[in-house]
Amino acid sequence: MPFPWGLCLVYKNWAGPIRKKILPPILGSSTRYLMLGAQKRTSDFNSFVVRTNTCGELRSSHLGQEVTLCGWIQYRRQSLFLILRDFHGLIQVVIPQDESAASVKKLLCEAPIESVVQLTGTVISRPPGQENPKMPTGEIEIKVKTAELLNSCKKLPFEIKDFMKKTEALRMKFRYLDLRSSQMQYNLRLRSQMVMKMREYLCNLHGFVDIETPTLFKKTPGGAKEFVVPSREPGKFYSLPQSPQQFKQLLMVGGFDRYFQVARCYRDEGSKPERQPEFTQVDIEMSFVDQAGIQKLIEGLLQYSWPKDKNPLTIPFPSMTYTEALDFYGTDKPDTRFGMKIVDVSDIFRNTEIEFLRDMLKKPQGAIKTICIPGGAKYLKSKDFEAIKEFAVNHFNQEVSPLFLKTSGSRKSPLTKLLKEEEKSALISLLRVQEEDVVLLTAGEHNKACSVLGKLRLECADLLEDRGVVLRDPAAFHFLWVVEFPLFLPKEEDPRELESAHHPFTAPHPSDVHLLYTEPEKVRSLHYDLVLNGSEVGGGSIRIHKAEQQQYVLETVLKEDVKLLSHLLQALDFGAPPHGGIALGLDRLVCLITGSPSIRDVIAFPKTFRGHDLMSNAPDYVTPEDIDPYHIQVKRAEDTDSTDVQSVVCEAESSRLVLPSLTKTENPFEKLALDQTPELLDRRKPSRSPDNK
Amino acid sequence: MPFPWGLCLVYKNWAGPIRKKILPPILGSSTRYLMLGAQKRTSDFNSFVVRTNTCGELRSSHLGQEVTLCGWIQYRRQSLFLILRDFHGLIQVVIPQDESAASVKKLLCEAPIESVVQLTGTVISRPPGQENPKMPTGEIEIKVKTAELLNSCKKLPFEIKDFMKKTEALRMKFRYLDLRSSQMQYNLRLRSQMVMKMREYLCNLHGFVDIETPTLFKKTPGGAKEFVVPSREPGKFYSLPQSPQQFKQLLMVGGFDRYFQVARCYRDEGSKPERQPEFTQVDIEMSFVDQAGIQKLIEGLLQYSWPKDKNPLTIPFPSMTYTEALDFYGTDKPDTRFGMKIVDVSDIFRNTEIEFLRDMLKKPQGAIKTICIPGGAKYLKSKDFEAIKEFAVNHFNQEVSPLFLKTSGSRKSPLTKLLKEEEKSALISLLRVQEEDVVLLTAGEHNKACSVLGKLRLECADLLEDRGVVLRDPAAFHFLWVVEFPLFLPKEEDPRELESAHHPFTAPHPSDVHLLYTEPEKVRSLHYDLVLNGSEVGGGSIRIHKAEQQQYVLETVLKEDVKLLSHLLQALDFGAPPHGGIALGLDRLVCLITGSPSIRDVIAFPKTFRGHDLMSNAPDYVTPEDIDPYHIQVKRAEDTDSTDVQSVVCEAESSRLVLPSLTKTENPFEKLALDQTPELLDRRKPSRSPDNK
Repeated sequence: MPFPWGLCLVYKNWAGPIRKKILPPILGSSTRYLMLGAQKRTSDFNSFVVRTNTCGELRSSHLGQEVTLCGWIQYRRQSLFLILRDFHGLIQVVIPQDESAASVKKLLCEAPIESVVQLTGTVISRPPGQENPKMPTGEIEIKVKTAELLNSCKKLPFEIKDFMKKTEALRMKFRYLDLRSSQMQYNLRLRSQMVMKMREYLCNLHGFVDIETPTLFKKTPGGAKEFVVPSREPGKFYSLPQSPQQFKQLLMVGGFDRYFQVARCYRDEGSKPERQPEFTQVDIEMSFVDQAGIQKLIEGLLQYSWPKDKNPLTIPFPSMTYTEALDFYGTDKPDTRFGMKIVDVSDIFRNTEIEFLRDMLKKPQGAIKTICIPGGAKYLKSKDFEAIKEFAVNHFNQEVSPLFLKTSGSRKSPLTKLLKEEEKSALISLLRVQEEDVVLLTAGEHNKACSVLGKLRLECADLLEDRGVVLRDPAAFHFLWVVEFPLFLPKEEDPRELESAHHPFTAPHPSDVHLLYTEPEKVRSLHYDLVLNGSEVGGGSIRIHKAEQQQYVLETVLKEDVKLLSHLLQALDFGAPPHGGIALGLDRLVCLITGSPSIRDVIAFPKTFRGHDLMSNAPDYVTPEDIDPYHIQVKRAEDTDSTDVQSVVCEAESSRLVLPSLTKTENPFEKLALDQTPELLDRRKPSRSPDNK
Repeated sequence: MPFPWGLCLVYKNWAGPIRKKILPPILGSSTRYLMLGAQKRTSDFNSFVVRTNTCGELRSSHLGQEVTLCGWIQYRRQSLFLILRDFHGLIQVVIPQDESAASVKKLLCEAPIESVVQLTGTVISRPPGQENPKMPTGEIEIKVKTAELLNSCKKLPFEIKDFMKKTEALRMKFRYLDLRSSQMQYNLRLRSQMVMKMREYLCNLHGFVDIETPTLFKKTPGGAKEFVVPSREPGKFYSLPQSPQQFKQLLMVGGFDRYFQVARCYRDEGSKPERQPEFTQVDIEMSFVDQAGIQKLIEGLLQYSWPKDKNPLTIPFPSMTYTEALDFYGTDKPDTRFGMKIVDVSDIFRNTEIEFLRDMLKKPQGAIKTICIPGGAKYLKSKDFEAIKEFAVNHFNQEVSPLFLKTSGSRKSPLTKLLKEEEKSALISLLRVQEEDVVLLTAGEHNKACSVLGKLRLECADLLEDRGVVLRDPAAFHFLWVVEFPLFLPKEEDPRELESAHHPFTAPHPSDVHLLYTEPEKVRSLHYDLVLNGSEVGGGSIRIHKAEQQQYVLETVLKEDVKLLSHLLQALDFGAPPHGGIALGLDRLVCLITGSPSIRDVIAFPKTFRGHDLMSNAPDYVTPEDIDPYHIQVKRAEDTDSTDVQSVVCEAESSRLVLPSLTKTENPFEKLALDQTPELLDRRKPSRSPDNK
């Protein structure tokens, strides 16, 4: 049984380290090839094809062998050497100089860079002193006998070299060229192999059944973000579901008690950064299982499939309740790679003379919360604190004050001056304030105070890292379970009504079932989230498996139209076993593991956040004949409401951006730099993204 | 490394033989459990859950062990025994009779059939004489200590017993119940494991990369059968592609030189039997490969993933040219499990006195073709021959005559009488006619004559098998490559124009490239089909990898709008390697392997051929708000053309069928029997389908 991770290790080495900041990213240089010597031969990459070897696998052990290679011309040095590339690596080819090989020389000298060549020759030693220890194939070269130009390459929009800077819009327009980069090769190969290991774990080790479920389905209650697909029956539409949730539960009723699927899901959220209209989740459901069982399964799954070139995972993962997460991190997806936890200091101020603090503590949910920024006084500037305060007011309508408690400098804040000595020393003791630390304090309604500090905790971590402080180890992967979520939340548009915190099939926590019929807003659920480094990478729950309870939740609590779910309710009545499951967001997970700045870097053909494929120009206009069988027509402009007009305006604006660059530039590819960039901006600040390739 | 086929073997045994005709299908009876004793423990089915064992795995070796089981109540014998079922099998549970266990007794006696129960007890021997050798667990039973009713079951629309006959419409309406049947469990588990083995072969053994490609794409040229998905931009639509063809070729340009994907594909063909609007193909593409390489890969793939409970495959598979297939079998997907090949007898009749034969041979493509039906005179009746002749006239406008050349009976045909003795003996010798054989003869244009006999060959085979003649071994799997297809075919609507025989990316045969520019209709292609038992289960080709040739084919030969494919044409210019690939139709392949009457039997949640999900009632009406973001509206009735009206009428007719049954029946489930049956009819004759479950 070959070990598939070998390839990934190989490729990782060719690709070089992910964090390009740390090691130079130039293809062929530095340490990226050094480890290839230790590669294990795993899969047979040369079966069924004309080549005898890949470019990257050749070593001194192949000396004297006649080999046939296929690859792309990476570059040429004068008319003497040619570097041939395939997915596996680079090899130096000696261009023959003698008369008898004139045609081979001509071919190899004249073929444009990135042309595809097949050649046969002998593996020979490089002359003494000409070895390249930085290249895994650096001890040898190929003495060519025959060569064939398989395809010539026209002038490229950009060179296939990692050090070439290019905009993401340009990369997406010519995705097939971008895919040749070592980084994209590494990302997609790692993804493939990680999924393969997951399948082995689920299918071979634990008896799960891989079952495909339909994507042409019907509208789900509350499924506002579902794409519709018109059918040939007038007025009837399919929906593209956001997950196989109903099907996987029905499979449990059907006796497939261990189901999984690497499932394509769809979500139309209009224009949201870091979202794709179609995405992939590792979808799992089991019968006769409890929350601990699912968690153990997932911990084993991730440990088994974890890339061998990363630090191994320790299991079990730590766990935290939703309430703890909010209290200490101000968010339901805490980044636990660093401290700076939120500390409640209300008790210190019970008898304070500072009026606004005292007043706040008299209110029902009033609290005083702090975080301590290590070295904040040293690394953060006055304008940083201004920005922090402004951010808190603008986004949370909340005052935040910095406290300089053990700083030698001249910086003071108004609140620091008001503090009594015993308040200061109590804070220093409770928060363990060190020299040059800064404390951020806010007084307000408990959850809101936590939320603002939770957000500022992340912003300050970014700021500190920008100033060179190492807070988060880039090689660290901190998984965390967040549990005991509320089952329902007040609706944003009408807080007197409730909506599901996750989805209506989530089971109530056994300790809280009695509250379902009296105070549903207080019911905790059996939902669990899996968080990695502050991002949600999975979520699941134990489901309701009794029809009456499901009907009560849908009809009485959520006021949903149960007719849309009559098949599911009926199924629960026909011997549904207790069951639960989880879904892992594969794109996000692989994105975090590869350290990619965007999920677009782990998807072969991604779309912009507006849902555009810049390569093929999808979606596109169709003819009336194309949609005629579906009994629909495009609304005329006068039919569209203001929202539609709005979106048209946005489009017009983004096109307007193109015009100046079109007139300015002579390179037709460059316009893409401006053209589509607005669609590719992530919500996260540029400072948090690794360098562009 | 556990061996995943173990499960399948286990399941197969539980499920019993596929050909229900041959062995009795009643759950719990006959030989189906006999082989379970030899089962190999493979995957851990009991990890992460409360049960300690599956019901089906318990044996005498477990005697004395305390076990916890979860399952469904299959049936009860008086108040003494209860049979518990899970996916793995059945186990007998002794209902305790002593006072101290009154509550357990009550629970086990009162829970309705198909209720879900968890119980803990001890494995004990059955009393001497009470063993059941037909049951793999028949030597033992469970002495219960505790029991819990996990979920009660309401009155079912049908019993979960294999011998219960039910209409397919009823099975689809309550799919989650139908999935509990041993047959559906076997089919879907076999499918899962076969795909897993394919992945191991491709990914682990041969270095293929599993890459997901988008399903929200743009319209492809000639993609008339593509579902459209409206986007939020007025008038712009995505298309759901029929295959990842373009993406897999672009991946080759991107240097992923071994790609595969188990890909969801979409095809809107309106109402066609044995087609699903979404289906799955094992999609493969390789660079630097030739036709022989792809064929070898696929032969290895199928051999590696072939179910262990079937006869092992012999590779390489035989190969046949398109012309040979047409000449000898009258079809491009010959069923080579039996003979009855078409024989050209034109030479025998060069100087015949039978006028219509002589005339036909004077025409340019005129030919006289025959098939010999072994034992036809014995097994086929006069009305069969009438039906055969009528079929040929109705479907092919072609006269077919039976010849009784070595029959003892009184049956004669007009043509037999006209034959001269030397013609008769020449036919007998050439066709190797045996006693009681019948020859079918037709004179006509070469291809048409072959087509009609090809079809009659299959029809006669069905007839003979209905009469008890064994022509095709049900355990035989005859794979066949069909190669050298024409690259183009005349368009049906205008034979002066050409269309691609498969798709426009297929490369011309190297020997015929010169004809591309002069007589394109004569060019053979590098397309290959994989045929299994007369059904196409795969197809692929070596692709065009040069932009000029691709552009010439699209623009000059096919007169397509090349703008829709500009990205692909451009990609071919940027160093596209030579490449080729194939796609296997997974649904059809698994259908044939499991011997299922319909591909719906190997899909968890299939749709009717009209595209309806009878369980959830998809597609369904939506509100105007649901489609409003997409700038579309449903056409009013007066906007629809006659085609639309036609389809509405069809719907009305099919609903009208429901009404009488609705009024007649008291069982609300029974109406489904009539309700949807028209949608489930296959094109193949009922006589060829195995019995219903």
